[in-house]
Amino acid sequence: MTAEIAFPACVENREATGRVVLVCEHASNAMPAPWGDLGLTADQRQAHIAWDPGALGLARGLALRLGAVLVHAPVSRLIYDCNRAPDSPGAMPERSENHDIPGNHGLEQSARAARTRAVYLPFHATLSAEIARRLALGLRPVLVTVHSFTPVYHGQPRAVEFGVIHDADAGLARAIAAGGAAAGLVTRLNEPYSAADGVTHTLRLQALPYGLPNAMLELRNDLIADAPAQEAMADRLAPVIAQAVGGLDTVARAG
Amino acid sequence: MTAEIAFPACVENREATGRVVLVCEHASNAMPAPWGDLGLTADQRQAHIAWDPGALGLARGLALRLGAVLVHAPVSRLIYDCNRAPDSPGAMPERSENHDIPGNHGLEQSARAARTRAVYLPFHATLSAEIARRLALGLRPVLVTVHSFTPVYHGQPRAVEFGVIHDADAGLARAIAAGGAAAGLVTRLNEPYSAADGVTHTLRLQALPYGLPNAMLELRNDLIADAPAQEAMADRLAPVIAQAVGGLDTVARAG
Repeated sequence: MTAEIAFPACVENREATGRVVLVCEHASNAMPAPWGDLGLTADQRQAHIAWDPGALGLARGLALRLGAVLVHAPVSRLIYDCNRAPDSPGAMPERSENHDIPGNHGLEQSARAARTRAVYLPFHATLSAEIARRLALGLRPVLVTVHSFTPVYHGQPRAVEFGVIHDADAGLARAIAAGGAAAGLVTRLNEPYSAADGVTHTLRLQALPYGLPNAMLELRNDLIADAPAQEAMADRLAPVIAQAVGGLDTVARAG
Repeated sequence: MTAEIAFPACVENREATGRVVLVCEHASNAMPAPWGDLGLTADQRQAHIAWDPGALGLARGLALRLGAVLVHAPVSRLIYDCNRAPDSPGAMPERSENHDIPGNHGLEQSARAARTRAVYLPFHATLSAEIARRLALGLRPVLVTVHSFTPVYHGQPRAVEFGVIHDADAGLARAIAAGGAAAGLVTRLNEPYSAADGVTHTLRLQALPYGLPNAMLELRNDLIADAPAQEAMADRLAPVIAQAVGGLDTVARAG
């Protein structure tokens, strides 16, 4: 099925000359044909299980302020989660938090391969091209992925407002977390998730092989629920990211 | 210049069902338009600086015997070395061993970006697709890259016949090296190159992010100089690789 369709990644601000490359894997809750609604209600399709509410608006605000290119996915993470490898159960999850995803039950391998080809491969090929072009031009890109998380998970409220997650290279994440705390956000390193939860696939695939500084940002979604809140948060976080990236340069020059 | 041309990777044995994915980044010494001969003589274009002589023939022999897909590059490593990142000087080298590469002197960044787009990105997108398809189908691919090296380098003869090189995950390389030695080849781990020389880019980009077993093979090219020698070496090495891959399964099941 569906061997020929493809959903290319969206790229905004492609000619930006800043070092930061922003990524939003969970930007969209779109569930296009041939997959459709996966058996979910309209409420479920609006919920955090289908996407990261507010993340795209925040990422766009950051892209403008940082002069950064932005690459984002055009379909719901429940069709294919571009931050998961094709052999991860989370790539096409049968269950998310306390919701069953009927359309993902018992997927045949050919259907998994078709979604991988239609969503995952075009997304990462586009992101690779943006990174490779900057490397060839002599820039040293910095990869920052932008996510949001639900304020209540399995019934438990979450106090953390801003999570910064790292993989093998923690330098940028630590600097951004320090800046977020200084900016007054309740900030935690590697909360509410960490690399051990398998959430750093994009960092591993796109940044680590090139030795690029990288970090994954997680905002509690009630803080970025509408456009004014997203703009305000972008105002708050853009200088934090810029300062952290600038600090990397200082360290590199001193080394 | 040359923004629109592209040289897709060659794929042989695409429907193979074996776990091994073979890669030959230096299979070809072709120097097509718009780049042409880079100012090199015919002898230089036949020499090891332009490609890995014998590696493609050996890789094809291994692909047949192992039931493996084979992905190989269609242009010379002097146009773009697909085993190097776009910001590596070795990707489009100005000098190789004791040879100047006139056509690579003082390349503008736009020319570097154009070669990256034309050769590097299509090569790795194709290889990514082969790996991702196998992951989605529930296979656990094993990445093996096939290279050759010159018997005399900077005037010094090399005694090693078979080098096996690893990056962060040494398991498969150690098993193959043990098998190569048992098969009577003068075998060394991480000779004549090692990851410290920047030669493991493909392993880092295509295997490590997915946790896939991987190794880079280096054969001294006088041992695989013609088709009969390549066939004989494939006969010798295919069981070594098969046994090493089988051993990984045993370890995984025991764990």
